[in-house]
This record gives sequence, structure tokens and C-alpha cells, in this order.
Amino acid sequence: MIIMKVHQDQFEIKTSQRTEAVDVTSKIEDAVKKSKIKNGICTVFVPHATAAVILNENEPGLVDDIINKVEKDFPAGAGYEHDRIDDNAHSHLASGFIGQSRTIPVNDSRLLRGTWQNVFVLELDGPRNRKVVVTVIGE
Amino acid sequence: MIIMKVHQDQFEIKTSQRTEAVDVTSKIEDAVKKSKIKNGICTVFVPHATAAVILNENEPGLVDDIINKVEKDFPAGAGYEHDRIDDNAHSHLASGFIGQSRTIPVNDSRLLRGTWQNVFVLELDGPRNRKVVVTVIGE
Amino acid sequence: MIIMKVHQDQFEIKTSQRTEAVDVTSKIEDAVKKSKIKNGICTVFVPHATAAVILNENEPGLVDDIINKVEKDFPAGAGYEHDRIDDNAHSHLASGFIGQSRTIPVNDSRLLRGTWQNVFVLELDGPRNRKVVVTVIGE
Repeated sequence: MIIMKVHQDQFEIKTSQRTEAVDVTSKIEDAVKKSKIKNGICTVFVPHATAAVILNENEPGLVDDIINKVEKDFPAGAGYEHDRIDDNAHSHLASGFIGQSRTIPVNDSRLLRGTWQNVFVLELDGPRNRKVVVTVIGE
Repeated sequence: MIIMKVHQDQFEIKTSQRTEAVDVTSKIEDAVKKSKIKNGICTVFVPHATAAVILNENEPGLVDDIINKVEKDFPAGAGYEHDRIDDNAHSHLASGFIGQSRTIPVNDSRLLRGTWQNVFVLELDGPRNRKVVVTVIGE
Repeated sequence: MIIMKVHQDQFEIKTSQRTEAVDVTSKIEDAVKKSKIKNGICTVFVPHATAAVILNENEPGLVDDIINKVEKDFPAGAGYEHDRIDDNAHSHLASGFIGQSRTIPVNDSRLLRGTWQNVFVLELDGPRNRKVVVTVIGE
């Protein structure tokens, strides 16, 4: 009989810019390996309301494009009400709309991701310390 | 031996505005409690094509910012083809792009969410009655 | 005793346009049926960085609206750095922000989706062959 299980890991990253994309792929792959789960899913989550998770190619030009696009589509200081008590409404909006998690299949003990699908934590209100939670479920 | 299980709950909410963010955090936490699952994931889903789910801080100014941002980025009546048979193309677009679900880790019998990460159902074509489906999977 | 399990299917689609929404609902429902899982979740994932997954109504006018909205919000050739080595930065940005997966509850052996919630693979850099991975987890 094949046994279903859950494996959960947490780790921290330190960001250094206001907006930044940090590649955490190898950390996620370590968690999948440690889980010894062969088939299932892996959910990557940041317990933050001013950060997000995205999957994309780790090409330096594209990483800059991602940062520029976020800053253009969610501009800072655009008359937000939340800015009357804090200065990061734009970070909250980007985080909520882009989303704080992504779920990737696990197949044959590995993340079933595309060649150009690295896992990034998107810092939207840095620099800060950020937690990342990885949950692998399967058999 | 630790036993894996699934717990599924459904509940309804009633919205009162065209665009509205309804905090359903306590309902989701009730479902996690009832599930008696200690570690795993919780998926919050709305079975609707003109609503969405987002995680964010429940600060009244920010909630207004979210609503204003959605209405600005997905403007009503902008010459959509779908509006020839209905009047809610903008609601469909916002729902599809923002997404109708979010997945949150469960750790030590609780949602492992950040301090500022409340769970909101985003009404995009109200007022309406909306269903919310909560699925908790884990051990 | 109820047994938890994982069922994973993969299939391919062939797109014919640069930007296109392909309805894969029946393929996803076939995977759920084959899984014999009664209650749980179903994650639909594309292992690509220039495609996405969305849920929406399959009405031809709305499908055109979705394509027009993506092309307007993620315009091609807008001075992206990634375009110096490839010509598809806009496709990468749309894919990363909209997201390459969606998770839908499974209830009573069926996708618990709304009447207007069909599952679409969003081609953002076609025409290409695309893989779709369906993972059903539950009991």
C-alpha cells in the first residue's frame, strides 16, 4: 500500500531592495527531496501581505522587466487611502492581486516544472526578512 | 500512524455592493478547526466567474484601495464584446485574472497566515449571494 | 476506512494563435473521473513560463475580451530588456502575473465549479504545443 503524507518546511530570506525577485527554486527542490514524496503537489506560500510568489525564467533582463512592470502597474503614492496610515498601499495591492502562493505538481520525486519556470519570491516592500512556507502533499 | 484526510465545508455570503471585499477569515478558521487536521493545506474557492479570493490586511482604507484598483484596472463598459449579451465583462475579466481561489498552509491546527493576511471574497458583480468552498487536506 | 490517494494525468494541446484561450474542461473532468476520488482538490498546471490557466465562461465574445485584455495589459515590444535576447517578454510577464495553475475543489466525484467556470489554458506565445498536468488529491 502507498502511504499519503504531508511534509512542511519553512525558511527565511533577506531582501535588499524595495522591489526584488529572489530565486528560491533550489530551496523548494530541497524540500521536495526531503519529503520523499513521489507524486503530488507542492504549495509555496509567503505569510506576508506585501510580497508574492511567481514562477518565471531566471534571466536577468526578464527579472528587471518583472520589477519594472510591478512598479508601473502598482505605482507607489498614487493617492491611496491606506497611505494615510502607512506608505505601502501599492505593495499590498500588488501582493493581493498577484497572489502569495503558487502550487506546482510533484512527479517522480521532482517538481514537475518547465525549463523556464523558476520559483521566485517577489519582494514588494523591502528590504525585509521574509518567511517562505513549503507544503508537499502526496504519496 | 498518522492518518491523512480531507475536510470540505461550504457556506454562503450575501454581498450588498457592486464591488465589495468581504472578510471571511473567521469562517475559514472555523473550517480548519472542525477538520481536526494539524498539518496540510487549505484551499478557499468561489464557484463563480465574477468573484475572486484574495488575502490582504483588513484596514478600511486599504479595502477601499482594493475596490478602487479593481474598478480602475477592469473598467465597466469599455467596449467589451461580452457586454452585447450581458453587462459584466469587466467582472469576468477581473475574476479570471485575479483568480477564484487561494491556498494557505495549515500548521499546528491553524492557518499559517501572516498577521496582515485576512481572507477576502472579492465581489465583482454584486449584490449577489455567493458560495465559498473550503477544502482542508492533511494529517 | 477511507483511503486518500493521488491521481496525476498529463495531456498535450496544440495552439494556433499568438494569444489564445483553449477550453480544456472536459479533459480535466475526465481526469477527475479516472481518479475515482470523491472529495478533495484538483490542480491544473501548465509547465510553461509563457502560458497560464484561468477559469471563466466559454462565451465567444468574452473569450475575445480576455485575449484583448491580455494583449492590452501586457503589450508586446514595450521596450523590455528580455526582448534583446528573445521577443516574448510580454508573454512571460502575463504568464507569471496571471499564474500557471488553478486549484478547484472536487466534491461527490465531480469538479465543484460554477456554471460559468470553464477551465482554459491561456496561450500567450503561440502557436506551440503545450503540456497540461492535472493532479487530483483526496479520498
